[in-house]
Amino acid sequence: MTHAFDEATALEPIDGGFRAQTHPAYNNMVGPFGGITAATVVAALQAHPEAQGHPLSLTLNFAAPIKDGAWDVAITVLRTNRTNQHFTYVISQGDGAVASGTAVFGTRRDTWSDTELAFPPVQGPEGYAELSMPEFVEWAKNYETRFVEGSLEMDGPQDGSTTTMWLRDKPARPLDYPALASISDSFFPRVFLRRGTYVPAGTISLTTYFHASPAELEQQGADHLLATARAARFGHGHFDQYGQLWGRNGTLLATTHQIVYYKDPKA
Amino acid sequence: MTHAFDEATALEPIDGGFRAQTHPAYNNMVGPFGGITAATVVAALQAHPEAQGHPLSLTLNFAAPIKDGAWDVAITVLRTNRTNQHFTYVISQGDGAVASGTAVFGTRRDTWSDTELAFPPVQGPEGYAELSMPEFVEWAKNYETRFVEGSLEMDGPQDGSTTTMWLRDKPARPLDYPALASISDSFFPRVFLRRGTYVPAGTISLTTYFHASPAELEQQGADHLLATARAARFGHGHFDQYGQLWGRNGTLLATTHQIVYYKDPKA
Repeated sequence: MTHAFDEATALEPIDGGFRAQTHPAYNNMVGPFGGITAATVVAALQAHPEAQGHPLSLTLNFAAPIKDGAWDVAITVLRTNRTNQHFTYVISQGDGAVASGTAVFGTRRDTWSDTELAFPPVQGPEGYAELSMPEFVEWAKNYETRFVEGSLEMDGPQDGSTTTMWLRDKPARPLDYPALASISDSFFPRVFLRRGTYVPAGTISLTTYFHASPAELEQQGADHLLATARAARFGHGHFDQYGQLWGRNGTLLATTHQIVYYKDPKA
Repeated sequence: MTHAFDEATALEPIDGGFRAQTHPAYNNMVGPFGGITAATVVAALQAHPEAQGHPLSLTLNFAAPIKDGAWDVAITVLRTNRTNQHFTYVISQGDGAVASGTAVFGTRRDTWSDTELAFPPVQGPEGYAELSMPEFVEWAKNYETRFVEGSLEMDGPQDGSTTTMWLRDKPARPLDYPALASISDSFFPRVFLRRGTYVPAGTISLTTYFHASPAELEQQGADHLLATARAARFGHGHFDQYGQLWGRNGTLLATTHQIVYYKDPKA
């Protein structure tokens, strides 16, 4: 049986890129879940006949909602260096561009290494009950989420915007770069926590740095990741989010940033 | 007298974009200081005849060193929405593309607001001596830097990669979006602190979120900014950096991220 994630990120080669299809299992309020779009772009770059190395950096700008159905990603290999490769891409649907971005692939080398951030002080995933996002958030049903703090089950506005959660694909699926890209967008908008309610919000630009080597992804396998994120500043209709995705064994697999639009009358 | 920063970011309109010139005052070890390239891109986007709103997000990928002389930035307005505008751009020099990226401009609206990160516990800039970067770092001479922690005057490898410094243009110059973009790349590579020495290193991809409204830039004027940054993970020849740029009055003006290449034999 094919995993819904693999169905949703399936690609058909076309002239200059790939064609993908939105998948009902990954619907968001308006258009598809941004994470599945990011995942599909990563899958497309990896499938590119000239691709070298593995994903290192991905930026995805959401310019307009993606409508249900087919979408095309046109990929340009901007430059291939000895240890890295630069891509640009544009996502379009019939009447025009709906998203665009850049990516860098890199060759991992053996160097001095250290993880400077500390793994958050939490219990293992079994220490927290599985708690789904609200029923109407279709894409979230593809993740098993266990909140350590900052779930949507809140009692009014919160003092902080931090969400920390254990999560993995549901059903469990071995982690790969597309899945990691998707999980990097799996945090609901931070402004919900601070306002204690839903407000219109949507990611404008997402950047993920993939720290994990292929061997580290393999070590992680289908186990839970610890994902944590918070905002630095809310203002003028936008906020940022900085997140970290940790492997079960304490490996920092990815760091991720986004800037998000929100609508909220002045308090 | 024209400020060197304005000379270095000067633009000549060409078909589909702008032509810029490298400036000797902003030289780095190999090619120009990345910050001045980012600043010039922001200036070019602001000068674009179709530009609406103000810079919100900039991603710049450095694909190859920029050689001394002229470079061209080709700008595409991907999509203009009611409250934001999406750009893609490619920087080229004679033989091909050397950099590329995306940007989003946004319209600031009055909304509920809060800065969740705390301003670092430091004295004012006058509490720290001016300390220049080493003589051979040409671009750094255009900044007055006062280190709170994490300068290059170090005694061997450091336990942490944090640099916190007060800085401003030298001579002082009122802050604008290009100058803020430049300052977002003003941290030397974090790996220098951890290794206690210089190693070959260079930014691969830089993303800056501009939180400041035009009015907040005006409030900041030509005063010192407090800039702080650290890495999360070093490994496999790459590290990330997350930084914040604060105004003198405690306004979080920008947050910035980059992924950096480094070369270092395994310890």
